Amino acid sequence: MKMKIRKLDAAAADFPRQLSQLLAFEASEDEAIERAVAAILADVKARGDDAVLEYTNNFDKLDATSMASLELPPGELEAALDGLEPKRRAALEAAAARVRAYHEKQRIECGSHSWQYTEADGTVLGQKVTPLDRVGIYVPGGKAAYPSSVLMNAIPARVAGVKEIIMVVPTPGGVRNQLVLAAAHIAGVDRVFTIGGAQAVGALAYGTATLPAVDKIVGPGNAYVAAAKRRVFGTVGIDMIAGPSEILVLCDGTTNPDWVAMDLFSQAEHDELAQSILLCPDAAYLAKVEAAMQRLIDEMPRQAVIRASLEGRGALIKVRDMDEACDIANQIAPEHLEISALNPQPWADKIRHAGAIFLGQFASESLGDYCAGPNHVLPTSRTARFSSPLGVYDFLKRSSLIQVSEDGAQMLGEIAAELAYGEGLQAHARSAEYRLRTS
Amino acid sequence: MKMKIRKLDAAAADFPRQLSQLLAFEASEDEAIERAVAAILADVKARGDDAVLEYTNNFDKLDATSMASLELPPGELEAALDGLEPKRRAALEAAAARVRAYHEKQRIECGSHSWQYTEADGTVLGQKVTPLDRVGIYVPGGKAAYPSSVLMNAIPARVAGVKEIIMVVPTPGGVRNQLVLAAAHIAGVDRVFTIGGAQAVGALAYGTATLPAVDKIVGPGNAYVAAAKRRVFGTVGIDMIAGPSEILVLCDGTTNPDWVAMDLFSQAEHDELAQSILLCPDAAYLAKVEAAMQRLIDEMPRQAVIRASLEGRGALIKVRDMDEACDIANQIAPEHLEISALNPQPWADKIRHAGAIFLGQFASESLGDYCAGPNHVLPTSRTARFSSPLGVYDFLKRSSLIQVSEDGAQMLGEIAAELAYGEGLQAHARSAEYRLRTS
Repeated sequence: MKMKIRKLDAAAADFPRQLSQLLAFEASEDEAIERAVAAILADVKARGDDAVLEYTNNFDKLDATSMASLELPPGELEAALDGLEPKRRAALEAAAARVRAYHEKQRIECGSHSWQYTEADGTVLGQKVTPLDRVGIYVPGGKAAYPSSVLMNAIPARVAGVKEIIMVVPTPGGVRNQLVLAAAHIAGVDRVFTIGGAQAVGALAYGTATLPAVDKIVGPGNAYVAAAKRRVFGTVGIDMIAGPSEILVLCDGTTNPDWVAMDLFSQAEHDELAQSILLCPDAAYLAKVEAAMQRLIDEMPRQAVIRASLEGRGALIKVRDMDEACDIANQIAPEHLEISALNPQPWADKIRHAGAIFLGQFASESLGDYCAGPNHVLPTSRTARFSSPLGVYDFLKRSSLIQVSEDGAQMLGEIAAELAYGEGLQAHARSAEYRLRTS
Repeated sequence: MKMKIRKLDAAAADFPRQLSQLLAFEASEDEAIERAVAAILADVKARGDDAVLEYTNNFDKLDATSMASLELPPGELEAALDGLEPKRRAALEAAAARVRAYHEKQRIECGSHSWQYTEADGTVLGQKVTPLDRVGIYVPGGKAAYPSSVLMNAIPARVAGVKEIIMVVPTPGGVRNQLVLAAAHIAGVDRVFTIGGAQAVGALAYGTATLPAVDKIVGPGNAYVAAAKRRVFGTVGIDMIAGPSEILVLCDGTTNPDWVAMDLFSQAEHDELAQSILLCPDAAYLAKVEAAMQRLIDEMPRQAVIRASLEGRGALIKVRDMDEACDIANQIAPEHLEISALNPQPWADKIRHAGAIFLGQFASESLGDYCAGPNHVLPTSRTARFSSPLGVYDFLKRSSLIQVSEDGAQMLGEIAAELAYGEGLQAHARSAEYRLRTS
């Protein structure tokens, strides 16, 4: 059956309205989920291990007798890796090595070093950069358990120098995903607990007798996990709460239309709310891509999801030229941006807002999802306007350093006292004045 | 009247419990505020200028006739600066110059540059760093209107290269704080609207016909502003929601006790919930600081606030030695940490968690609050475990760059396809396989 895919023309008078309608996505807040999560978190905070154990046995249909029994022995991770089919193991290890290499470069470039400078009067100013002590990684159970996601979350933390990484992953019915455990071993995860849901987020945030509290929680999860992360934010750090995944393809009309069609599918197959949009100045090319999509859809095992996503939220958009395509891309601020063009660099230079920019026809998003090296945890829902891919910098934090010399205290004290009196803060002023030699 | 200040001994058996009780602070969520803020935000989103104008006239007792009339003409900022008493103007300009100089160094050191590297097969990987387009700065009205806060929020944004900075500041009864407007001019704020509260946060987040939507909102505010910022987070970026201000002083017993007493006062005078704690291995010195506090308190204009803060949340803690003091400091992860010691560096090296570290007896927190150079917007309530001072990096964001060569696509495609099949994502696999020469 033919898909009905939205076709827009950027020259149309009401295109701005159409575009904003296309992009509109409001994460609905479910009161029942909010209440359930609040209750679970409060219970985990109050009763620790006992509460986590009860919820886990209940929700995941287990009959564990202690929190300690929910921790995997380290040997089990190694065994999972050893048990993989050689080709898959090699692929996982190659992907991990590339992700590690990229993030090692990022560590060097991203300002992970402490720095300071000395002023003429001997005052020293600077900033000390320190890795987080302990990080928790949430990994979903069941079908959405992606080993690539384990690599992408754990490796930057390890590269940043985080001392301890604790992974939680629910195992409904006791089923353990061997690829996920193997990925945890490769990524250097220190401890793994087979717990999930809001109870796992609570255990990580507040700590229990068995599971020590972490300083930050990262990783994707369902609506309960997202609600729990929002609620514990402040007690611990969290990564962004991800919206539906998105791809925007800017094409100059020179890429094989089948390739672009499949790139749009690859985003759409994630879930029904995922968004795939193509911008191209060439109407004939847009028609070719649509024809390819109609031809290829029936071959796709996940065609029901792809159809729902493309018909609900996809679009093929005719633009005047590639310059206009870049302007629209900056408005959309997409999670993934493919610039599928013979000479992509001039267009990439015009892009201000995107999570990841893929340049050229060979850079399909799927290569970035698994193994190009950069992180696949990216800002969604236009948040690329103000936020960044998950990276080494998310596992580092800074402290200002202020060492004032006696001479420096004279000059600074005069300024500070004057401004403190101006703000009506006399203790501030006196504290500065005490350091003056004349005082 | 003597203050009753809590005295603890770290050697006591139940010290860990006492410490955690001392630090406990739960920001209460007020349902009435939440409901009011949700309604105001929805109204501003729906009705734009009209809603903002109505709320502003109502809450701030104004009779403005249009949103445009709530914008200050640029000349008014300059006039405010020109109208300042020369000594105060000089102090404000000197502070701004120092804050700018520090943040310029930070820009160079913090990883604000784009970077990329080319692999042997021609694949290029990297990261592009871009300033935010437009930032909103919230400045409280009335007594808590601090010009230093305008400098600390606007200057890092300007240094980062943000194109447009829009400040909002409520003017209840039409009263404008000339120091705040002068600071806005010095800091290079582009536009100022005399609006505040949840309606100002809504206007910045959603945009109106007159006030364009920003990408991030920073700056302190009351409970309504904090609730509104939490709610618009995701639509725009926000800085941390600050808890009560804190100082922790580690003293080796060599600093003039009056100086340390006044440093503790300077934090306490901010508000009744502010927290001032002193750690020292010397019991006799602790007694001297307490005596100084009892002697000095009556001279302080804000003594009611200082008393409430110190009696409610302050503490003088005897520790075994400076090593133990550093351990406790890492547990507390204070916003401000003074290491008031003859040789502070060895202790500073042991500190992992603090917003700002002040080294030596001349580095009083008040110097950092106004003019040392580093930012005074710092992580509170133990969040220094995972977050950083406000900085240039908060106004920059990153996009990954992935340019895959034809050769690179062969190697990466094999890995990606293998892992995609392992995750059951066939369109991902096909998209990678299309780029293989054998396909």
